[in-house]
Amino acid sequence: MIIALKPGVSKEDLQKLIADLEKLGVKVDTSQGSSQAVLGLVGDTTVINDEALKANHLVEKVIRVQEPYKRANRAFHPLDTALDFEYDGKKTKIGAGNFSVIAGPCSVESRDQLISIARSVKKSGAAFLRGGAFKPRTSPYSFQGMGCLGIDLLVEARKETGLPIVTELMEISQLELFDDVDMIQVGARNMQNFNLLKELGRCRKPILLKRGMASTMTELLMAAEYVMAGGNDKIVLCERGIRGFDNFTRNVLDIAIIPALKKKTHLPVIVDPSHATGLSWMVPAMSKAAIAAGADGIIVEVHNDPECALCDGEQSLTPESFSTLMDTLRKYAAVENKVI
Amino acid sequence: MIIALKPGVSKEDLQKLIADLEKLGVKVDTSQGSSQAVLGLVGDTTVINDEALKANHLVEKVIRVQEPYKRANRAFHPLDTALDFEYDGKKTKIGAGNFSVIAGPCSVESRDQLISIARSVKKSGAAFLRGGAFKPRTSPYSFQGMGCLGIDLLVEARKETGLPIVTELMEISQLELFDDVDMIQVGARNMQNFNLLKELGRCRKPILLKRGMASTMTELLMAAEYVMAGGNDKIVLCERGIRGFDNFTRNVLDIAIIPALKKKTHLPVIVDPSHATGLSWMVPAMSKAAIAAGADGIIVEVHNDPECALCDGEQSLTPESFSTLMDTLRKYAAVENKVI
Amino acid sequence: MIIALKPGVSKEDLQKLIADLEKLGVKVDTSQGSSQAVLGLVGDTTVINDEALKANHLVEKVIRVQEPYKRANRAFHPLDTALDFEYDGKKTKIGAGNFSVIAGPCSVESRDQLISIARSVKKSGAAFLRGGAFKPRTSPYSFQGMGCLGIDLLVEARKETGLPIVTELMEISQLELFDDVDMIQVGARNMQNFNLLKELGRCRKPILLKRGMASTMTELLMAAEYVMAGGNDKIVLCERGIRGFDNFTRNVLDIAIIPALKKKTHLPVIVDPSHATGLSWMVPAMSKAAIAAGADGIIVEVHNDPECALCDGEQSLTPESFSTLMDTLRKYAAVENKVI
Amino acid sequence: MIIALKPGVSKEDLQKLIADLEKLGVKVDTSQGSSQAVLGLVGDTTVINDEALKANHLVEKVIRVQEPYKRANRAFHPLDTALDFEYDGKKTKIGAGNFSVIAGPCSVESRDQLISIARSVKKSGAAFLRGGAFKPRTSPYSFQGMGCLGIDLLVEARKETGLPIVTELMEISQLELFDDVDMIQVGARNMQNFNLLKELGRCRKPILLKRGMASTMTELLMAAEYVMAGGNDKIVLCERGIRGFDNFTRNVLDIAIIPALKKKTHLPVIVDPSHATGLSWMVPAMSKAAIAAGADGIIVEVHNDPECALCDGEQSLTPESFSTLMDTLRKYAAVENKVI
Repeated sequence: MIIALKPGVSKEDLQKLIADLEKLGVKVDTSQGSSQAVLGLVGDTTVINDEALKANHLVEKVIRVQEPYKRANRAFHPLDTALDFEYDGKKTKIGAGNFSVIAGPCSVESRDQLISIARSVKKSGAAFLRGGAFKPRTSPYSFQGMGCLGIDLLVEARKETGLPIVTELMEISQLELFDDVDMIQVGARNMQNFNLLKELGRCRKPILLKRGMASTMTELLMAAEYVMAGGNDKIVLCERGIRGFDNFTRNVLDIAIIPALKKKTHLPVIVDPSHATGLSWMVPAMSKAAIAAGADGIIVEVHNDPECALCDGEQSLTPESFSTLMDTLRKYAAVENKVI
Repeated sequence: MIIALKPGVSKEDLQKLIADLEKLGVKVDTSQGSSQAVLGLVGDTTVINDEALKANHLVEKVIRVQEPYKRANRAFHPLDTALDFEYDGKKTKIGAGNFSVIAGPCSVESRDQLISIARSVKKSGAAFLRGGAFKPRTSPYSFQGMGCLGIDLLVEARKETGLPIVTELMEISQLELFDDVDMIQVGARNMQNFNLLKELGRCRKPILLKRGMASTMTELLMAAEYVMAGGNDKIVLCERGIRGFDNFTRNVLDIAIIPALKKKTHLPVIVDPSHATGLSWMVPAMSKAAIAAGADGIIVEVHNDPECALCDGEQSLTPESFSTLMDTLRKYAAVENKVI
Repeated sequence: MIIALKPGVSKEDLQKLIADLEKLGVKVDTSQGSSQAVLGLVGDTTVINDEALKANHLVEKVIRVQEPYKRANRAFHPLDTALDFEYDGKKTKIGAGNFSVIAGPCSVESRDQLISIARSVKKSGAAFLRGGAFKPRTSPYSFQGMGCLGIDLLVEARKETGLPIVTELMEISQLELFDDVDMIQVGARNMQNFNLLKELGRCRKPILLKRGMASTMTELLMAAEYVMAGGNDKIVLCERGIRGFDNFTRNVLDIAIIPALKKKTHLPVIVDPSHATGLSWMVPAMSKAAIAAGADGIIVEVHNDPECALCDGEQSLTPESFSTLMDTLRKYAAVENKVI
Repeated sequence: MIIALKPGVSKEDLQKLIADLEKLGVKVDTSQGSSQAVLGLVGDTTVINDEALKANHLVEKVIRVQEPYKRANRAFHPLDTALDFEYDGKKTKIGAGNFSVIAGPCSVESRDQLISIARSVKKSGAAFLRGGAFKPRTSPYSFQGMGCLGIDLLVEARKETGLPIVTELMEISQLELFDDVDMIQVGARNMQNFNLLKELGRCRKPILLKRGMASTMTELLMAAEYVMAGGNDKIVLCERGIRGFDNFTRNVLDIAIIPALKKKTHLPVIVDPSHATGLSWMVPAMSKAAIAAGADGIIVEVHNDPECALCDGEQSLTPESFSTLMDTLRKYAAVENKVI
């Protein structure tokens, strides 16, 4: 951390400030220029309160050189993290050279719908089944998901297909219902629901953490840090599009965050091309772009009857188009030396 | 709601679609153009699932003419809503020609700090005391607030000053601690925490609902609708800045949303110039702009020692600068025929 | 300017880098921390190429403490700049305690239209007449303005009313047609048309420089610097809304840039509430917010028959609503000690 | 085009409006609902002035179903456009199954630099040489390019290597200097310099049109329409990143615009990963994403000595890393059945 002081700070003020900072356990290097002093802080600067520093009348600028996150930081954990899943003796990983495809309907709507979709995505090569039981909907008058029943159906679909299941948690009190779920999804709107993140830090399940609609990369990594600070480091990060000024897609898929995250963190990174674009016909192009940019997987919506879907039909692939997509992705995986 | 169909839809398909829509209780007017048909839906279109419609292969475009919210909609409630507060026999209102100033520290830090600030903002003319007990912080390593103890101190400060108190709720389970709070704040990061909103719909306390960092006006009103759908219509909306591409302020104060909200909804609207800019020296200019644009009040951070504030010192006014601001706002209120 | 070097830079590399920098005429203070060195550059750092520095393999971070603009910088010109206008013996100023209202139609459409509007805005208290002769239109099939004839009509309207005239220049070759124009407008889309800016630096007419749709404050000031570097320091800056993610207004009026610009530069700052919102009914609220936030004036569209306007009718005030607005603004000016 | 009228419009008003619209040559279908009428306009609605319509007091909403562009519209030109280039008997195409790589330095800096880079990118498989002679720089104090001399050197480099040359035009008066240039680049800041676009419509050279920093897809296509309306349909569109709220990259590469443009227009689409990210280490990942998403090519910065580049060194590949990138892209091209 670098602190540029205002011109004309007195020696006494300077020494007091340095002493205050050193009390926090950091070492302070002072560079006295002709007009202004610059302090360089060495050590664990995550304890420093930037805001209080910026409010200090001696300070002109505060610049963090180190990132404010530790456990999620590749600098301290150079090796890639991979997550292990196991069901009925069969093992799967996210990370470690896999390109993991998570597929399924936006919402669980019925037993028949779910089992049918689960079987078809499994056949096409998906490694995980997704499906919403509790649904965050913009309107209170929209379908809010099947709730616990939805989770029961997911568990049943896993029994049928062997696919580990991924579903979204919307509030802490639902956590006990998620015992049988293999990976808990935190939605974009909850990325900074800090109480929820803390609670998930106490559980030992893998977390699929979606980037908020207008979150910076650092905020996403700080959200992961909240979970990791509690002791749970099984996190998959997910880019799902950020808010933009145009409307030809629902959101703007920020494809460059994939290599950026890969550089800054050791956690696996996947892409949600369905929510990023909101348009099923764009999902194949965006899925290919995801693997090309270095993602560890995708999470895609597949519905057997998109026109009758209770939510997000416009962005769901049919089982047939999903199967075609998987064939293409296998060719890309071969180029990238990844395993689908 | 207007539905433009694709060219070349057959009569049978058209009639089936109309029948499906009418089953939902809306009336359908058909305009058969030379190449394509356009359907006009009359009635309560909030029941219609836009997404399923957009996924329908017959449909080219779906356009909502009516807003998707009802209880928050001025079209159905032409008169302004005002909220009543009472403490120790003294009554206050938000709305109804008042310009309500809510002031206090970002976080409650100690008894002395809070009581001292409460007294000074009261003296300068604030109508409410704000103070964070549970704090949403980007970093898990930052000060997270005093919790219940903070609420106790707020209650004590109210006893001292008579100012009704406003503080932020971060999760449903905290609700029981908020019995003595006069207005519950929902932070920007929780604006689409739908489970929290539903729960607040069941309580009968006034809610201060902050706009999310990248929320559209409609999303903000739909969040209010979540609370109102549960039966609680005591809501104050708050503009607190949206995410932008520049960094001379923390956020972009979207001043135009004030007249826009005033047109669309009957709920009171206030502005948070402290979070919108993140810079205390900008707070007076933005507060004046807020009253000029038609806001019903502001919520401002005031700290007796901004340089030592445990959070957001850079954006806090001192009691002295707050007092000067109040003097200016009284002149503006006179021009706008509002009561401070 | 502060340069944080990467850890482990050798003494030789360090000395060579310092020598290279000092050749550019700046003084370099070195702070050798335990792990990395930090350089502080003192002097005229506008000559330093940030990009080349950032590409240097020794460098971790480059931080500008000083702004990259000089002539537009209040640090070097503490006193407010005011612009003088004179026509037929009557003098007007922008800046210096005035709140200057520039009003008129989006496009000059005919002699009758222009003279009629000019008379009515003059009567209501406008200080300048605006009107587009050359129009930047998104579509090549839209009305492109009356061209030279439009300028002739503006000149005629000035003769009738005594109001100095403001109109937009779209390309260098038009400059000779602007001899009789009192202030040349550079539109948002041309804010970074650097060749145009350089040319305007050579002329001696006041320039109304509009902020680009997605320009940062620094970019706006650098655009002004382009003109000023050529020797023309008669510049008025104009906030006209930035691109946002919502569509309830055409753009997002960035009201906070007014105090921010006032702090960073000595140039006058005005607001265009018509283009910022695109909605005539919002113009009064936004005009009041502009004066409240510290602006030196506004530029507003007024049309005698908005429904038949050849462009931007939706955002034009009628002469009657403009007159009412002026009455309100006079009350605000009284509070702010400004002269309308 | 669909026009929803306000409730309660009288028969006379309705008939007058319809008559006015039909005078413009469109056919109007009226759907009289129980409360409001909806008009459907059939025919060439590009002549309709949306803004005047929206300002009409009878009108509630105006919705364009057809796009406002014609010549750039795939609906009217279903087949892909390809551009032909020829130098010294050797032919090249952009479009038509090619993945065209345009490579070279940000600025032409010297004969040695340019020839050396040109030779190395040619050897690695680039199809075009790029290099800036006239440079749009944010600061008037930065290197502004070598001007005409830069163009002479590009012509010389073409003679040496046979690579057609691409360079940026900044103002109309420079056009005569571009006689020997094979493709004229219009920079992001000039995308809505309408006078420049009109002039380019009159010339017969291929145009590389870069998307503006905050331009919508429709605005980009309307800019192309400006050129095409003048009779020049040799246009290549280029996505180069849009402005975003985070700063881990210079801009946000909007990868989804590639399939979106491919659907809406018949023109070739390329990507500029260098300007989109501003970081050379991200260029390979983004280049692969571009081909995966369906682009017809890329334009990349390559510099023999990025640390000494007079501009944009941080985003330039070395000749070696460019060569490695080309090897990877050939594998992708094989999967996509494209020719590099």
